[in-house]
Amino acid sequence: MIQRFEISDARYELKNGAGSDAIHKDPQYAYAVTKLLDGNGISGTGLAFTLGEGNDLVCRAAGFYASRLQGHGIETLMADFGNTFNELSNEQQFRWLGPHKGVVHLGLASVTNACFDLWAKKRGLPLWKLLISLSPEEIVNTLDLSYLEDVLTREEAIQLLRDAAPGAPAREAVLAAGYPGYDTSVGWFSYEDEQVRENCKAALDKGFVAMKLKVGSKDALRDIRRANIVRETVGSNVKVMLDANQQWTLPQAIAICEELKNMNPYWVEEPTHPDDVQAHTILAKSVAPVKLAVGEHVPNRVLFKNYLQAGCAGFMQVDAVRVGGVSEFITISLLCRKFGVPVVPHVGDMGQLHQHLVLFNHIAMGHEALFLEHIPHLSAHFVHPVRIENGVYITPQEPGSSCDLK
Amino acid sequence: MIQRFEISDARYELKNGAGSDAIHKDPQYAYAVTKLLDGNGISGTGLAFTLGEGNDLVCRAAGFYASRLQGHGIETLMADFGNTFNELSNEQQFRWLGPHKGVVHLGLASVTNACFDLWAKKRGLPLWKLLISLSPEEIVNTLDLSYLEDVLTREEAIQLLRDAAPGAPAREAVLAAGYPGYDTSVGWFSYEDEQVRENCKAALDKGFVAMKLKVGSKDALRDIRRANIVRETVGSNVKVMLDANQQWTLPQAIAICEELKNMNPYWVEEPTHPDDVQAHTILAKSVAPVKLAVGEHVPNRVLFKNYLQAGCAGFMQVDAVRVGGVSEFITISLLCRKFGVPVVPHVGDMGQLHQHLVLFNHIAMGHEALFLEHIPHLSAHFVHPVRIENGVYITPQEPGSSCDLK
Repeated sequence: MIQRFEISDARYELKNGAGSDAIHKDPQYAYAVTKLLDGNGISGTGLAFTLGEGNDLVCRAAGFYASRLQGHGIETLMADFGNTFNELSNEQQFRWLGPHKGVVHLGLASVTNACFDLWAKKRGLPLWKLLISLSPEEIVNTLDLSYLEDVLTREEAIQLLRDAAPGAPAREAVLAAGYPGYDTSVGWFSYEDEQVRENCKAALDKGFVAMKLKVGSKDALRDIRRANIVRETVGSNVKVMLDANQQWTLPQAIAICEELKNMNPYWVEEPTHPDDVQAHTILAKSVAPVKLAVGEHVPNRVLFKNYLQAGCAGFMQVDAVRVGGVSEFITISLLCRKFGVPVVPHVGDMGQLHQHLVLFNHIAMGHEALFLEHIPHLSAHFVHPVRIENGVYITPQEPGSSCDLK
Repeated sequence: MIQRFEISDARYELKNGAGSDAIHKDPQYAYAVTKLLDGNGISGTGLAFTLGEGNDLVCRAAGFYASRLQGHGIETLMADFGNTFNELSNEQQFRWLGPHKGVVHLGLASVTNACFDLWAKKRGLPLWKLLISLSPEEIVNTLDLSYLEDVLTREEAIQLLRDAAPGAPAREAVLAAGYPGYDTSVGWFSYEDEQVRENCKAALDKGFVAMKLKVGSKDALRDIRRANIVRETVGSNVKVMLDANQQWTLPQAIAICEELKNMNPYWVEEPTHPDDVQAHTILAKSVAPVKLAVGEHVPNRVLFKNYLQAGCAGFMQVDAVRVGGVSEFITISLLCRKFGVPVVPHVGDMGQLHQHLVLFNHIAMGHEALFLEHIPHLSAHFVHPVRIENGVYITPQEPGSSCDLK
């Protein structure tokens, strides 16, 4: 039984321009951490991610939700977590502050993730192993499918998982091989050209075959120059993703993407405002065959549904520490599966939690094992930091979701 | 010069089911109040509205933004407020918590509204009078039009206001006649049938020719029965609006609206999730010629733009205590003017602020003077409560935006 909870505000300084992008010149990395303590000495840890300022607001929201879970047994809770999620996210007064977005939804993410962590630890299993052991009905019982009735009913969700089951044993090969990673840290926004070049070479040496460059400069020529540097350094067989962090207007995005096409990016990420499905739809047509990636700032399943219905996103970057935690991450992954769009999470959790979730998505849902973002800057702070070898994530074996902080 | 600021958390209990709707069984009405104090004994008051729980989070966000305005002169600030708004709403760490939505955006609304209030008081004018006295360029200087470049440039915004100017003197007739109101309080969700009937009669006696009923019950027959009661009681010449407060799934909305069409609603409000532009687009086609009204929970100009581009909303209910304050309210009103959609604000401010804004929208922008929602439950708490006589808002004459609380 969940006897009590602790919320903590954990903030970490970054060094030498790490984490910088076109918007965020000088970020911190911060977690609103929920710890749920049961009576048997087991605790579940859940994270929501922010960039520092205001992390205390998310902590307060998490505390509001966590207080409602005291006295519940974790197995009972998770057997019907979809309804709990629905109730918490629609709590009648608090709902006004979203609904289903911003500070309150980040707080719900932190608490939801603590529930899944506690559940896995209670069973003594790494989260990925718990999730793939559940039946389609048990998985869907953890989801809130409300406001998706027009595209994904409960029955369809169960059927998607049933249809994927026969191929699961073969896909478990990924557990030994490791899930591929890509390197996000070669080209933070404030890095000089020479540093980008060196980082690309180092990433190749580490075995990465995909990496990301921050663009979205006010100086379009800088973006183009840096993109070409990366392409020249890594050659034509490495996947290079360009991330504009919402800095372009639609007319700007159309113009600069026309230029950036020349270096053959694997995707263009967050070209403009994350709420603007219509602008992404127009841009997607203009930039084809290059694809767009969105999701880092998309707050909930409803907006993801609209993106999928519009057909404008080639890759969905849902982040379980931005949407309402593991539960809504799985919901959105099911939506993406139905629409045939790959899920490549943004890793506000530094990949700790998502390494479990992409294994589940691949094995149990049949999503392609494409690659998972890797950001190393907080690895010293986790009890069980992700391990990357030869460019792949080594499958975690410790019980839980690997989110405990030192 | 803004020397200091005070943030206060003001919460008010409601009585006997007032304020109840399909989601909110037992709401409070609450304001995150920003007070900006200049050196000359003048203070500007701005509100953001919530339903109680979490109002403290909005207060903290407002404090963050307000602290950045200390030391600024109000005239200098407002001469270029669009850029200030852009900078505040994109503050590099805080932005993550939205962007442009939820708790942080509500906090920004409170601070923005305090700036406009202070500006009007400094000039000794009611806000409506200040706003209609400004040139098109001065108005547009208070706006942040970023992410709207594909549909509304600065030049187009100025031209819209210029084009409306010749008709303004004739439209000032509304100042003496009063802006029409409609009564939202005839049919709160928890009211019994007989009370709804009595309230409708009382509203007619007070001179209202438009009123609103809360629907969105799990029991569709209850909705239909109550809607028919209102229609029978008020006759066919009174406009009756139905408000579902987001409670229907899309399939449910399609089915029940087919039934509700029979009582000829003037609009159907918030039928489903406020982020779901696509669902509203499908529903709008199904429910035509009845129109949809949305906006109460739409957080920013980008999502309003998408609603307008989709052509699915017959009425836009932008609320200046939900979006980023007066500045973004005017931005969205300009967008609506361009797309030919009427603005009928939701009044989280109880109409105190919006009585000024609809006068500006009508006189200076050429929007139709349709009607403004009236909710009386907090009138005892305002220094200058709105005055309604014979169903019209009496034009306020006190300096400022009428938002000072006792």
